[in-house]
Amino acid sequence: MKRAGEFEWIAQYLAPLASDDAFLLKDDAALLHPNPELDLVITQDAVLEGIHFLPGDPADRIAQKALRVNLSDLAAKGAKPFSYSLALGVPDRWGDDDMASFAKGLKEDQQRYNIALSGGDTFRSPERLSVAITALGQVSPGGYTKRDGASPGDVLVVSGTIGDAALGLRVLSGDINVEKDDLPPLRDAYQLPNPPVSLAPHVAHHATASMDISDGLLGDCRKLCMASGVSATINRNQIPLSDAAGRLVARDDKHWKTVLTGGDDYQILCTVKEKDWNKFQTDAAKADIAVSQIGSITSKKNEHVALDIDGREVSIEDDSYSHF
Amino acid sequence: MKRAGEFEWIAQYLAPLASDDAFLLKDDAALLHPNPELDLVITQDAVLEGIHFLPGDPADRIAQKALRVNLSDLAAKGAKPFSYSLALGVPDRWGDDDMASFAKGLKEDQQRYNIALSGGDTFRSPERLSVAITALGQVSPGGYTKRDGASPGDVLVVSGTIGDAALGLRVLSGDINVEKDDLPPLRDAYQLPNPPVSLAPHVAHHATASMDISDGLLGDCRKLCMASGVSATINRNQIPLSDAAGRLVARDDKHWKTVLTGGDDYQILCTVKEKDWNKFQTDAAKADIAVSQIGSITSKKNEHVALDIDGREVSIEDDSYSHF
Repeated sequence: MKRAGEFEWIAQYLAPLASDDAFLLKDDAALLHPNPELDLVITQDAVLEGIHFLPGDPADRIAQKALRVNLSDLAAKGAKPFSYSLALGVPDRWGDDDMASFAKGLKEDQQRYNIALSGGDTFRSPERLSVAITALGQVSPGGYTKRDGASPGDVLVVSGTIGDAALGLRVLSGDINVEKDDLPPLRDAYQLPNPPVSLAPHVAHHATASMDISDGLLGDCRKLCMASGVSATINRNQIPLSDAAGRLVARDDKHWKTVLTGGDDYQILCTVKEKDWNKFQTDAAKADIAVSQIGSITSKKNEHVALDIDGREVSIEDDSYSHF
Repeated sequence: MKRAGEFEWIAQYLAPLASDDAFLLKDDAALLHPNPELDLVITQDAVLEGIHFLPGDPADRIAQKALRVNLSDLAAKGAKPFSYSLALGVPDRWGDDDMASFAKGLKEDQQRYNIALSGGDTFRSPERLSVAITALGQVSPGGYTKRDGASPGDVLVVSGTIGDAALGLRVLSGDINVEKDDLPPLRDAYQLPNPPVSLAPHVAHHATASMDISDGLLGDCRKLCMASGVSATINRNQIPLSDAAGRLVARDDKHWKTVLTGGDDYQILCTVKEKDWNKFQTDAAKADIAVSQIGSITSKKNEHVALDIDGREVSIEDDSYSHF
């Protein structure tokens, strides 16, 4: 295994990713110049080998997952990506190729999402690759969208499709077998989340409450309900599924549990007033993001989430997945 | 071992540390309202068990070390602490007592340094406690102090004393024996850095170049020289030592190598124009921070650091310690 030293790695692989005020990562810190007319938003999520990704996942995808789980939080708050910093714990087994692949993944996503690296830290993490990213975003004043604004009558909405990542993890772990053609989309959903970053301004404009779905749709919906002091009903038939996920739940109803509680979706769950729902759909379509109504906010009582399956109300235990 | 769940820990131990716009850590992100008339500075450093601290170190001190290594970077740039976010990887062996101690350490330092938590992430890190902190600071426009402004004739300055932490690590590791009374100050220096946070405005005002000393005085001085395109001479007799470190180097000259290259000092290394040196000392004294001249910037050639020992110039190999 070929491996250069810490300072060579920073100079060769990370410095080219740095923003102008990060001084090519040769200083102790960086200056930030956010737009003073916008509000500044901060979020920090870490991913650790064996907990948030699998030991065999490709390094470029791990880098992108680490960044995108943070961009997912920003998007859910209505904020546009501004800059990020990186604390990278490098496992002993890594060589130059791994570092090059990791940096390539970040470079692609920096271009995709128009964001640059403001600095950070690299250090030895003997057994497990660890990536802690702090992302800053910006949102128009008053646009920051919390979890607490949902009211009875609001439409309950998700972006994208639900359950692919959790099913993908089970496929990669050998728990579920799928047809050959269904493997790539499920695996990709687990390794490489695709947060609806371009939906952010429309969330800021239309959503009454919003969060990203990282710990499972049912559990995260319950968190939104608790923050807002409301109850919700989710119609299972309305939950948007990919073709691959659709085939799995059609084959065996038990896969619904993974879809509903598995986590790692990194899509947005939000509420929109009924009068704004058409406009939100139009704006989302222009931003090239699929949005689907999956239910509605029903009452101010109980902070409860009901799941409606073909007209029957069903309760599900273990409704949240924890990375803890 | 008693241990609550992730959300209970966040609610009980971390939410009380949150800033007003962090929504008691119940949202996906936080709003920041830095002073728009000041420049915003960001830095991120992580600490990992077995790499940056010892497995037996007390949890409150680990928390404080993780925060202070970041405040050290801010101070060296002339910036005042503003807010921080925390990615906490919790080892399987941790119980409620460990988490309580960790939060207590942060709470004390939040009061000491007038800084609040803006959010972050907790996750399972089976073997090793890991703490990645991102700190934001603020500095008057133009006050951010890089490493690249040193010129020949400038006074070379350090804050505090040098070498205690590296000697402390060697004592804790059983490499060095010390008298009973010398153990606590050296151990404390390793476990609990004391960055000169109150020196920041005077660094911003007077220093031509500045950095924090984290990888060893000689190696870090060489980085400052390379950034500035200058050479420096350090007079070993002028390096400020604690009583305990002084006794060790008096006992055996070989301990100088640990002092000069061992790292973990988290003091400031900066350069000041000769005409400003008296004023800088006066201001530092008012801020209750000891500063010492340890040499000077000598020329624009070679980007070299010479060590002067009793009038002889000596070169030292392995001049930098890496956490990599």
